Amino acid sequence: MPGPIQSIERAAAILRLLARGSGRLGVVEIAESLELAKGTAHGILRTLAGVGFVEQDRDTGKYQLGAALLHLGSSYLDVNELRSRAINWADALAARSGEAVRIGAPLEGRVLVVHHVFRPDDSPQTLDVGAMLPLHATALGKVLLAYDAALLASWRAAGPEAYTRRTLPPAAVTRALAEVRRAGWAAERGEMVPGEAGIAAPIRGHGGIVVGAIGVSGAEDRICEPSGHPKSRLLEQVRDAARAVSRDVVASR
Amino acid sequence: MPGPIQSIERAAAILRLLARGSGRLGVVEIAESLELAKGTAHGILRTLAGVGFVEQDRDTGKYQLGAALLHLGSSYLDVNELRSRAINWADALAARSGEAVRIGAPLEGRVLVVHHVFRPDDSPQTLDVGAMLPLHATALGKVLLAYDAALLASWRAAGPEAYTRRTLPPAAVTRALAEVRRAGWAAERGEMVPGEAGIAAPIRGHGGIVVGAIGVSGAEDRICEPSGHPKSRLLEQVRDAARAVSRDVVASR
Repeated sequence: MPGPIQSIERAAAILRLLARGSGRLGVVEIAESLELAKGTAHGILRTLAGVGFVEQDRDTGKYQLGAALLHLGSSYLDVNELRSRAINWADALAARSGEAVRIGAPLEGRVLVVHHVFRPDDSPQTLDVGAMLPLHATALGKVLLAYDAALLASWRAAGPEAYTRRTLPPAAVTRALAEVRRAGWAAERGEMVPGEAGIAAPIRGHGGIVVGAIGVSGAEDRICEPSGHPKSRLLEQVRDAARAVSRDVVASR
Repeated sequence: MPGPIQSIERAAAILRLLARGSGRLGVVEIAESLELAKGTAHGILRTLAGVGFVEQDRDTGKYQLGAALLHLGSSYLDVNELRSRAINWADALAARSGEAVRIGAPLEGRVLVVHHVFRPDDSPQTLDVGAMLPLHATALGKVLLAYDAALLASWRAAGPEAYTRRTLPPAAVTRALAEVRRAGWAAERGEMVPGEAGIAAPIRGHGGIVVGAIGVSGAEDRICEPSGHPKSRLLEQVRDAARAVSRDVVASR
C-alpha cells in the first residue's frame, strides 16, 4: 500500500503553522519552520492560494489562512455526529444551569470545542467553537484524558504547559485523572485562566467509549462553593446532560 | 514557473465535494465525481485522514470532513481583517437596529458570511458564520456583485438559480445592480427565502474598492414598509455602519 502523499502532508503542515501565533507568515519563515526548500514552500503556497486555502497580503506578501477554510470548517459542524446529538441537550443544560455550556472532543493533543451555548444572560461573550483548549487545565480536557490512554501518553510526551499558578503539575494530573475515573466527572478551578472554573462529564458512545465531554464553565464564584467544591446542583445537571447525550449518541448507531 | 501541485488541488476538490450535500461519501462516489482513479482517490483520502482533514466512519467506511478543519476555519476568523475591523460596528448596528447583522465577502461565486450578530431579543437563532449565500438573491450579495465586474462575469457564467418566485431573473439583476450603484445600498425581499428580507451597504477599502458588505436581515415586516421599501431608519443605520467600518478598514493600512 503506498504511503501518504508528501505534498498534501506538507500543505497541511503549512495550514497548521498559519493557524498558530500571529497568523501571517512570509514564504521564508514558512520554509524555515518546516525545513522545506523555499521553492518547495512557494509552490505549495501558490497552489493553496489557488484553491482559497491561503491568502497573500498585497502589501507585505505574507500569507494567512484563506476564506475557503471557514466554509469547510462550518460544513464540518453540519456533519459532526456528536454535535448534532448534543445540541438540544446543550441548550437545555444552559437554560437549567444559567451557565455557558461547551462540548469538546480530542484533536491533536488538545480539546477542540465543537459546540458552545452562551450563558443565557445577554452579557457579551465570544464564541469558542473551533478553539483548542489544553487537556490538563480544563474540566473538558481532564475528562478526555481520564478515559483515553493513547491521548494521555501523547499528552505526557508533549510536556504539559503551566497556565496559572493553579495548573496541576504532571504528577498531580495523574492523581486527578484517577479521581475523575472514580467519580465520573472532572472540575477545573483557575487552572487555565485565573477566576474561571468548569465542570465536565463524559459523553459515551457505543461500547461505553468516551467520545467527548460536555460541561459548564464560568466565573469561579458561580461554578464553585466557597470551599472550592463544584456546586452540587450544577454537577448533577452536567452529569444528567452527559448521560442524556450519551443515550442519543448510542441510539443513533 | 512550475504549475500548481496536482495532488493538493485534488485534495482540495475532495474537501469541497464533502462540504456539499449530505457530507458523507464513499471512495467510489468521490472518485467518480472527480473523475479520478479509485486508487488515486483512496491515496488522497488516506493522507487527508492522516492530517485530520477527513474522518472515515467505522461502520460504513464513508468519508466526511474532519475536525482539524473546524480549528483552521476559526483560526481564519482571527486573522480576517474585515471581520476584526467590523466586529464592534456590527454589535452597535445590531443594538441600534434591533435586527440581526451579517458581514459578507465574496468566495467562489457566493457570499461567505464572515460575521453574524444575532438579533438582540433572546430568540433562538442559528449562527450563519461560514455559510455561503447566493449573490443575486441577498442584499449582501447584490452589493458585492454591483461593484465587482469579475465577480459579476463569473456569476453570469455559472447560471443563476431561482430560490423563490421573487428571485430576480438575470436581466432584472442587471437593472437592480445599476440601481445599487446609483443608490449606494441594496435590498432583498423574499428572493432567497419567502418572508425574509435584508438591507446591505458596501464596505470600501483602500482606493474605494469594495471589500465586503454589511447588512441587517430578518422577517420582511420588520425590515420593510408595507410598500415594500426598506424602512428608512434601518437603511440609514446600515449605511452609517458601512461608512464607519470602511473608515476603519482604510485607516488600518
